[in-house]
Amino acid sequence: MPPSERFKQKLAHIIFDYNTVPSKMFDLFLIAAIVISVIVVMLDSVSGIHAVYGDFFYVLEWFFTVIFTVEYGMRLYVATNRMRYARSFFGIIDLLSILPTYFSIFFPGTQYLLVIRFFRVLRIFRLLKLVKFVKEGEYVRNAILASSRKILFFLFFVMVTVSIIGALMYLIEGEEHGFHSIPEGVYWAIVTITTVGYGDISPQTIPGRALAAMLMIIGYSIIAVPTGIVSAEMASMNEQLHADLSKLNSCCKIIDHDGDARHCKECGKPLD
Amino acid sequence: MPPSERFKQKLAHIIFDYNTVPSKMFDLFLIAAIVISVIVVMLDSVSGIHAVYGDFFYVLEWFFTVIFTVEYGMRLYVATNRMRYARSFFGIIDLLSILPTYFSIFFPGTQYLLVIRFFRVLRIFRLLKLVKFVKEGEYVRNAILASSRKILFFLFFVMVTVSIIGALMYLIEGEEHGFHSIPEGVYWAIVTITTVGYGDISPQTIPGRALAAMLMIIGYSIIAVPTGIVSAEMASMNEQLHADLSKLNSCCKIIDHDGDARHCKECGKPLD
Amino acid sequence: MPPSERFKQKLAHIIFDYNTVPSKMFDLFLIAAIVISVIVVMLDSVSGIHAVYGDFFYVLEWFFTVIFTVEYGMRLYVATNRMRYARSFFGIIDLLSILPTYFSIFFPGTQYLLVIRFFRVLRIFRLLKLVKFVKEGEYVRNAILASSRKILFFLFFVMVTVSIIGALMYLIEGEEHGFHSIPEGVYWAIVTITTVGYGDISPQTIPGRALAAMLMIIGYSIIAVPTGIVSAEMASMNEQLHADLSKLNSCCKIIDHDGDARHCKECGKPLD
Amino acid sequence: MPPSERFKQKLAHIIFDYNTVPSKMFDLFLIAAIVISVIVVMLDSVSGIHAVYGDFFYVLEWFFTVIFTVEYGMRLYVATNRMRYARSFFGIIDLLSILPTYFSIFFPGTQYLLVIRFFRVLRIFRLLKLVKFVKEGEYVRNAILASSRKILFFLFFVMVTVSIIGALMYLIEGEEHGFHSIPEGVYWAIVTITTVGYGDISPQTIPGRALAAMLMIIGYSIIAVPTGIVSAEMASMNEQLHADLSKLNSCCKIIDHDGDARHCKECGKPLD
Repeated sequence: MPPSERFKQKLAHIIFDYNTVPSKMFDLFLIAAIVISVIVVMLDSVSGIHAVYGDFFYVLEWFFTVIFTVEYGMRLYVATNRMRYARSFFGIIDLLSILPTYFSIFFPGTQYLLVIRFFRVLRIFRLLKLVKFVKEGEYVRNAILASSRKILFFLFFVMVTVSIIGALMYLIEGEEHGFHSIPEGVYWAIVTITTVGYGDISPQTIPGRALAAMLMIIGYSIIAVPTGIVSAEMASMNEQLHADLSKLNSCCKIIDHDGDARHCKECGKPLD
Repeated sequence: MPPSERFKQKLAHIIFDYNTVPSKMFDLFLIAAIVISVIVVMLDSVSGIHAVYGDFFYVLEWFFTVIFTVEYGMRLYVATNRMRYARSFFGIIDLLSILPTYFSIFFPGTQYLLVIRFFRVLRIFRLLKLVKFVKEGEYVRNAILASSRKILFFLFFVMVTVSIIGALMYLIEGEEHGFHSIPEGVYWAIVTITTVGYGDISPQTIPGRALAAMLMIIGYSIIAVPTGIVSAEMASMNEQLHADLSKLNSCCKIIDHDGDARHCKECGKPLD
Repeated sequence: MPPSERFKQKLAHIIFDYNTVPSKMFDLFLIAAIVISVIVVMLDSVSGIHAVYGDFFYVLEWFFTVIFTVEYGMRLYVATNRMRYARSFFGIIDLLSILPTYFSIFFPGTQYLLVIRFFRVLRIFRLLKLVKFVKEGEYVRNAILASSRKILFFLFFVMVTVSIIGALMYLIEGEEHGFHSIPEGVYWAIVTITTVGYGDISPQTIPGRALAAMLMIIGYSIIAVPTGIVSAEMASMNEQLHADLSKLNSCCKIIDHDGDARHCKECGKPLD
Repeated sequence: MPPSERFKQKLAHIIFDYNTVPSKMFDLFLIAAIVISVIVVMLDSVSGIHAVYGDFFYVLEWFFTVIFTVEYGMRLYVATNRMRYARSFFGIIDLLSILPTYFSIFFPGTQYLLVIRFFRVLRIFRLLKLVKFVKEGEYVRNAILASSRKILFFLFFVMVTVSIIGALMYLIEGEEHGFHSIPEGVYWAIVTITTVGYGDISPQTIPGRALAAMLMIIGYSIIAVPTGIVSAEMASMNEQLHADLSKLNSCCKIIDHDGDARHCKECGKPLD
């Protein structure tokens, strides 16, 4: 193996493994860099803080951009199929994390303030890089995927309800009470059925309030539906998991053998 | 069979089937027409958009009305019992979807515009007709139907609570703090117990706020009740489903045979 | 049996039974009277409606009062232990439903009007008496009772949380941002943790908003706790019910025999 | 045993036992003292009440402080390892409950008003002393602990969502509609996704409202996730509990033997 190939392999180990010391340190360093750089982006948007620490944040920004550029280069370098990585979800996110900073060089004037603000805010998508490190979500994701069709059907029902009630409220309350158009009525209906309730638009007439009360009670009752779907799905998954485990190791009705056990601790039967 | 009869049957297949190519295309085309026409109605109610695109929307509206009229005619033509279709829920909705536009020729004034717009939005109900084949809807509907009596009892309890607390708040806060009548107090109580919380009416006195805090905590706790009912019902349904499946195909404790399997893939037993 | 005794018994049957025609009619008539009289009280409190229909409502009020007085007399007459009925929860509610109207003769001033109206609304409690036979109510009540200790513990946790966070917000935001005292801070914390969110008091400073965001996320997450408790309890109850039924009628694994079945419809085994 | 040792042991019994008469009275007295002293702290912060009862509250405060000091001394005295108690969670809470009052002697002038207010509010943490007396929470705590990793993952997902949508709203709505910075946008997104909805900041533009509607529906749907997790966990725990009980006493499929039963009441098998 040529040395360059060996170096590449070593690098790949650091980047993709997650139980050796160097790869753990690499991960922790990256996570810290992502979190801090996102906090910097957020604080930099507060005008009071920007006035004082703006220059410091500018330096920090370039520091993080260089780090993420090096990371992007490394991932591209070790990838077995570079095009595939570059086009993958994380490949695009990794690129988007660094591009805005470089772009800001080409629009230095204040005349493009909006464009610069746009690119600055875009950097917040770096947060999505964090998702790579979360190995936890399988269970939650599976439960949501398994019930996604039912939840989509539920959302379809919600959309039909808010469309009709939003249009009805536009008819009942009209412009003089803040319902200027049907989309505004639908927006109000969504604010109400989800029990958010800003109160920026709210019905004033008696029939309007009666309809609103009905919508609130609908919203309050049907929240049971997605919750019931996901609960039932997760209960099924838990049961399935127990059943699978007990089929695998069905000597003594012990379901949770110790992780490192090679034999059942009650009867001595070898485990898989 | 006379040719007119054969044509009628062919038409009926396109309209009512849902797994042949022409009927699928018919459904997709209708769904698109409904969704777009509803969006057009909604956008047309925004005065800024109406000013610019009003004429274009007017043409579109007539285009969709003609389509829906043809569809209504077709359904009426192929129906085995025309009166029954015309009087059914979907028959009435189908008619209401097209009437307002024709109506607007004879009553061109703007005073009916709001009402006509509302009836046009009712078209969205027609989507429900097209999703009746979705088995996810079945599952959700069954769970809600099975628990509807319990949920009605729960809503009865909520109504009693909001009536009494609404009346009490009218007594405590009075007109000077925005509680002008008992119905207004009840409206406030519904806004509060469902955790919507607009804030357009809110208690100012100390006893009023104490009562409000109590009501909020009641609302926050008892949302567990409908959710628990539906969750438990769905868990029962899932279990029943598994039990049914395992009784049907009870050779190898495999519950989820592949959809196209004719024999159990473990023991070769033929499946239904 | 003397005729008066026989009359009394017949009356008692009408009042307390719930599956004969006269008793059903008696119940339905009473439910209608209660619901309409409560609606009349509510509408009468709306000044605009009172101005027009006040006299009509006054007559209606006396009409219902006479009905409820006759009913109260009847219940007192047929009661085996009159003192016990008069002192029971429903006995007191029945009396409170009619007293305010008589009271209003002796104190004709409007200064007691609000209080009298409130007591009139209490009539709605009388509906509870008539639904005590609803088995759905039993199910919901049992599930809540079985989990009441766990829910009380949950509410204790909520109370401690809102007390401490309310006090901290009073310290952080202070009087200048609407947090005039610790109880007001606690009120705000309850409004927030229950996700009601009126917005009449809301944090303005950065640390205050950070604490508020934390409280919201706590409230949003821990709503899972009472819901989980009740869901799990109801799932257990459903399972227990199925197990009981299948033990009782354990011939053919049919759990839901028809209500009027005397024999299992599959194997002919007699049922209890 | 020397008398001092015997006294110490007797004291320890009173403090730590919870089923003898003196220890129960000790507990009840302490609980009352904690609750009343916290109420005093709260009421004292209401300026109207402070003006009238301030002196009375001052005396009460010293009364409770002396009680809690004696309690702290007693616990320190009987502790087998004093340092460990002093450093334990409850040791620190017990100390913090009395310190602020003593501190207030050293800062008597009005120039330290803020410091005094700070210490006064700190006394609210006395509430945590109550946690000692709650023996209920095991079940709830176990269910939350068992699902804490899944809930943390859920919160991570929520944090990423609100960060990105908050930043987008800052971009869309901008300063002129109350979104002055990204952190403010994130605060708004938390207020919205948790369905609190104060309404102090709310979107005004059409794209802003569309994004807000999307966020509300996300929040309304994903509340199913933590609830589903905890529900499924609790259902598992209930099942496990039943299974454990039935394994212990597996004669007649009776799960709930009477608490005082020594033999199974159906078959007479001795129970543990």
